[in-house]
Amino acid sequence: MPDLNELTTPALLIDNARFEHNVARMDRQLEHLGVPLRPHLKTVKNIELARRMLAGHPGGAAVSTLAEADYFFAAGIHDLLYAVGIAPGKLAEAARRIAGGMRLTLILDHPDAAQALAEAATARDTAFRVLLEVDADGHRAGFHPDDPALVEAAGTLTRGGATPVGVMVHAGGSYACRDRDCLVRMARQERDAAVAAARKLREAGFDAPVVSVGSTPTAMFAEDLTGVTEVRAGVFAFMDLVMAGLGVCQIDDVAISVLTEVIGHRSEHGQVIVDAGWMSLSRDRGTADQAIDQGYGLVCDEAGSVLSPEVIVRATNQEHGILARRDGEALDARAFPIGSRLRILPNHACATAGQFEAMWLIDSDDETTEPLERCRGW
Amino acid sequence: MPDLNELTTPALLIDNARFEHNVARMDRQLEHLGVPLRPHLKTVKNIELARRMLAGHPGGAAVSTLAEADYFFAAGIHDLLYAVGIAPGKLAEAARRIAGGMRLTLILDHPDAAQALAEAATARDTAFRVLLEVDADGHRAGFHPDDPALVEAAGTLTRGGATPVGVMVHAGGSYACRDRDCLVRMARQERDAAVAAARKLREAGFDAPVVSVGSTPTAMFAEDLTGVTEVRAGVFAFMDLVMAGLGVCQIDDVAISVLTEVIGHRSEHGQVIVDAGWMSLSRDRGTADQAIDQGYGLVCDEAGSVLSPEVIVRATNQEHGILARRDGEALDARAFPIGSRLRILPNHACATAGQFEAMWLIDSDDETTEPLERCRGW
Repeated sequence: MPDLNELTTPALLIDNARFEHNVARMDRQLEHLGVPLRPHLKTVKNIELARRMLAGHPGGAAVSTLAEADYFFAAGIHDLLYAVGIAPGKLAEAARRIAGGMRLTLILDHPDAAQALAEAATARDTAFRVLLEVDADGHRAGFHPDDPALVEAAGTLTRGGATPVGVMVHAGGSYACRDRDCLVRMARQERDAAVAAARKLREAGFDAPVVSVGSTPTAMFAEDLTGVTEVRAGVFAFMDLVMAGLGVCQIDDVAISVLTEVIGHRSEHGQVIVDAGWMSLSRDRGTADQAIDQGYGLVCDEAGSVLSPEVIVRATNQEHGILARRDGEALDARAFPIGSRLRILPNHACATAGQFEAMWLIDSDDETTEPLERCRGW
Repeated sequence: MPDLNELTTPALLIDNARFEHNVARMDRQLEHLGVPLRPHLKTVKNIELARRMLAGHPGGAAVSTLAEADYFFAAGIHDLLYAVGIAPGKLAEAARRIAGGMRLTLILDHPDAAQALAEAATARDTAFRVLLEVDADGHRAGFHPDDPALVEAAGTLTRGGATPVGVMVHAGGSYACRDRDCLVRMARQERDAAVAAARKLREAGFDAPVVSVGSTPTAMFAEDLTGVTEVRAGVFAFMDLVMAGLGVCQIDDVAISVLTEVIGHRSEHGQVIVDAGWMSLSRDRGTADQAIDQGYGLVCDEAGSVLSPEVIVRATNQEHGILARRDGEALDARAFPIGSRLRILPNHACATAGQFEAMWLIDSDDETTEPLERCRGW
């Protein structure tokens, strides 16, 4: 295990204590609500961290790619929800995984997708498990709960030999909230849409045992999830500046950061150059529309303490980051010697982590680190 | 070699004929200017494509990470310019590569970086080759050509046993140009700053044989590069919507695209959902400030022809892209059947390609493809 100061920059760091704290906090919240977690593993993309998120829950997970499904299945997680509308071109691959023993659940939200899936179920003699995606907020995708097409799609699936097992809702619109009331309302809306859609299916004679909702903001702000059978959330394990800006966590809860080194000064601009650009931080600007625009990230010292709420990564090139003060005042270059190391808290954990093939789990009480692989690709 | 229609989406495609055309065009331009190319390989990150860019040139290349340096060195490219200001923490790694036979050149633009490098040169008995970075446009980094610190840094390096071999300029400000005159002017400014800085070094008694300039826009619009010894450029091989928006190429020259499949419709919004989100397209919004904002990319049919200048990827989630018309009119969902395939031309080739571990080289005259690996990490 190398020392922190031996890592090549830029490097992706995960603070072990903060990760633990964030997972425990979500566990307490869901215990209070009486609903188990189906962690969305697109954020961590690593089996050791996934196992810690799964502890005390039924054992199923959500993924965003079939590559993640393969990676986690090989590591022993068999119950996997592929939470992106299934592309008909991927049905053969999905059938192959089910034949291999994966308890794979697919989602869809269109009659033509249901038709394509039903035909594939018949042709491949595969009883695909399917959740019908339901829209709670006009954010992205989903049947409206009272759209007759929802029940018709369940019928199409059943006739083809597939199994509609329930409904799923993702209140992505919650990311646009600017206050607590909005988040509470979005959580209620998400739950209500899911429960209403499940009721429609049951009234039409379908079992619909699964009522799946989730996003980190709605999970943390839900007050009542009666009728919901599982909550999906992923970013909560790392947290990020977008979540802090939403009021879902404190800045000091952010477990993910990018270790970087000072490589230059722009003295006439009062700016500092580091070796973390958009290739490591990602181009995500998720805080741009929040009350506090964090640029490409908030700057911490090497130990992970925020230098000042004003010091951010203002601009990036591929492998360069430009540090500046948000208020336009000059940075004191003497506080950033060439060769000194810093950490950057990112806007969006999934996007920044997605830039790396590995991450380093760090304990604040010592200086050693442990490498963690990350699943990549599609 | 799989058929194009067998590829799992999203997939990164490189149009072979367009790549060839773009490389030939740059070769003609530099032959006209009488200056050889040192291709920047941070865009292609692949040895076969690098060899095609190097054909007819001296054989040296530029890279943006030491991981790229290792990858290309192992494949036989020995002369490598690591074109990011050297972090003192990377000097031990750099020395190890030089000891292993790599003709590695480093860059820096600060007296303290020169001091750190000189000390490492002495301590490790390594005659690091160094280019002094010079600022032409206030864009990012570099000594001003007439700043005495430039010549002083060369002295510091020499005293430590390192070798200042010349100067390098990157006119990154050219990306902000909005017309041809600006690009021509930026190219002249870049050349003039480099030549002036080299003259200062020579007047002070340093050889400074290397005068390195470059960016794709300035390379294509330079009218005179007298005194310049090499041009660095990389994105020209793939081109992208940012380059098209700058007038550096036509949309039909863009060789890079992301293959995707339609997975849903948002009928009430007149929008279409595909399985290419920001994890594949990247979050780059490089056209946002250009005359035509292309969203997250311009939509083509499966064969690579633009559907309409109005149809773009308007929004992205991790694995979802939302297609919409720029003018706000509704898309005709019947033109985008569930399961049909499209290609997306990206804003920024380096950023989009950087999201993939592999790419597929396609010939328009047949349907087969050849996989190309990509170097990753740091």
